[in-house]
Amino acid sequence: MAAIKVHGNPLSTATMRVLTTLYEKELDREFVIVDLRAGEHKKEHFLSRNPFGQVPAFEDGDLKLFESRAITKYIAYEYADKGTQLIYQDPKKMAITSVWMEVEALQHDKIATTLGMELGYKPVVLGISPNATVVEENEPKLAKVLDIYESRLAESKYLGGDCFTLADLHHMPIMHFLLGTQIKKLFDSRPHMSAWVADITARPAWLKVLALQSK
Amino acid sequence: MAAIKVHGNPLSTATMRVLTTLYEKELDREFVIVDLRAGEHKKEHFLSRNPFGQVPAFEDGDLKLFESRAITKYIAYEYADKGTQLIYQDPKKMAITSVWMEVEALQHDKIATTLGMELGYKPVVLGISPNATVVEENEPKLAKVLDIYESRLAESKYLGGDCFTLADLHHMPIMHFLLGTQIKKLFDSRPHMSAWVADITARPAWLKVLALQSK
Repeated sequence: MAAIKVHGNPLSTATMRVLTTLYEKELDREFVIVDLRAGEHKKEHFLSRNPFGQVPAFEDGDLKLFESRAITKYIAYEYADKGTQLIYQDPKKMAITSVWMEVEALQHDKIATTLGMELGYKPVVLGISPNATVVEENEPKLAKVLDIYESRLAESKYLGGDCFTLADLHHMPIMHFLLGTQIKKLFDSRPHMSAWVADITARPAWLKVLALQSK
Repeated sequence: MAAIKVHGNPLSTATMRVLTTLYEKELDREFVIVDLRAGEHKKEHFLSRNPFGQVPAFEDGDLKLFESRAITKYIAYEYADKGTQLIYQDPKKMAITSVWMEVEALQHDKIATTLGMELGYKPVVLGISPNATVVEENEPKLAKVLDIYESRLAESKYLGGDCFTLADLHHMPIMHFLLGTQIKKLFDSRPHMSAWVADITARPAWLKVLALQSK
C-alpha cells in the first residue's frame, strides 16, 4: 500500500494539481475518489482531513495536509531527488518562481476559475447557460492578466525561469478547462503564451492525469 | 545605502506584511514611500517593478520581487540565520506551516479584506457608509473561517505549530484593521483566537511597523 494517499476527484482542478505533481515526481500513490456530487467532501470523515471541506486531502505516512499548493510544495521539496525537478535550489531563482506561484493563486486563479465555471461547468456539466454579465466582466480581466504573462514569457521560457516548475504546473488544470471554451482565443492570440501552453500540455505526466478523467 | 529596498505604503496590508518580516529579521532596509492617492503605483516607473500595479515592490541588490508573500518567504529563507526564525527547517513542520499560509491567502484574506474595506477604509478614510449587504454577507463567512482557526489554535499555540512563523505574521495587517471595527467581537468571542491575537500583536517588530503609520 502506498504511503502517499490523495483523497480527491479527477475533475477537480486542485486535485489535478496534486496528481500532476505526483506523476512528474514518479511517486507511487493511492488515489481515493471523493464523490463531490454526493457531497462527500462536506461530511464529517472528510472534514476531519480538511476542515474547509475542499478536495484534495493528502497523506504521506502520518503527515496529513490540505490546500493543493501546500501539498505540491511539500512533494517538490521532500522528493527533490525524484523525477522532474519542480523547484530551484538557487534561492534567487526560487524567489522569482515563488512570485509567479503567488501570481497564479492570487491574480490568475479566481478570474480563470470564474470563467471556467460559467463557460465550462455550467453548460457542459449542469446543462445551463452561462451568466453573460459575469463572462463580460471577467474575460477582459483575464486578457489583462494574460498580457502580463505574455511579456513574462517573451523574456523567459517558463514562468519561473528556464525550467518547468510548480509555477507553470499550478496553472494547468484550469487552463485545460478554459482551452475547451471561447477563452482559448485569449491564449491563441498571444504567441509566447500559446507556445508555452503547447509545451506544458504535451508533458507525459499531464496526459496521465487527463487519462484519469475518462476512466 | 541598504541593499534591501521596499517600495510601498505604510497603510497597505501587503507592505506591512513585508516590513514586519524585515523587522523580525532585524535587517536594514530602505523604505521608499509610494503615493497611492496620487496613483503612483499605476505609473510606468512602478509598473516596471510590478506589472500588476500593486505595492509593495522589493529589491535585494539585483534581485527584484513583487507579491508580498513571495517576498516574505524569500527573506525568511535567505536570511534564516538572522533575527526571529519565521519558517521551520523540518520539512513536515514546514509543510503544515505552508498549509496555514495558503489558508491565510486563499480562505481568510479576501473575506477579511472585504470587511476591512467596508468597515474601516470606507467610513474612516473615504468618509462614506459601508455597504450593509456586503457586510451582512461576509461577516458570517469570516465567522465560519475563524471557527476553524479556533479549533486549530486549541491544539497548537501558533497556526504553523509551536513557534511564531510567517503563517501567523501574514494575518497581522488585515487583522489590525479589523480589530478597530465591529469585527473585533469575532476575535474576542473565541478564546484561543483571542489569546493568539494578544500574543502576536504585542511583538516588538509589529509595534515598529505600526509606528510607521503615525509618522
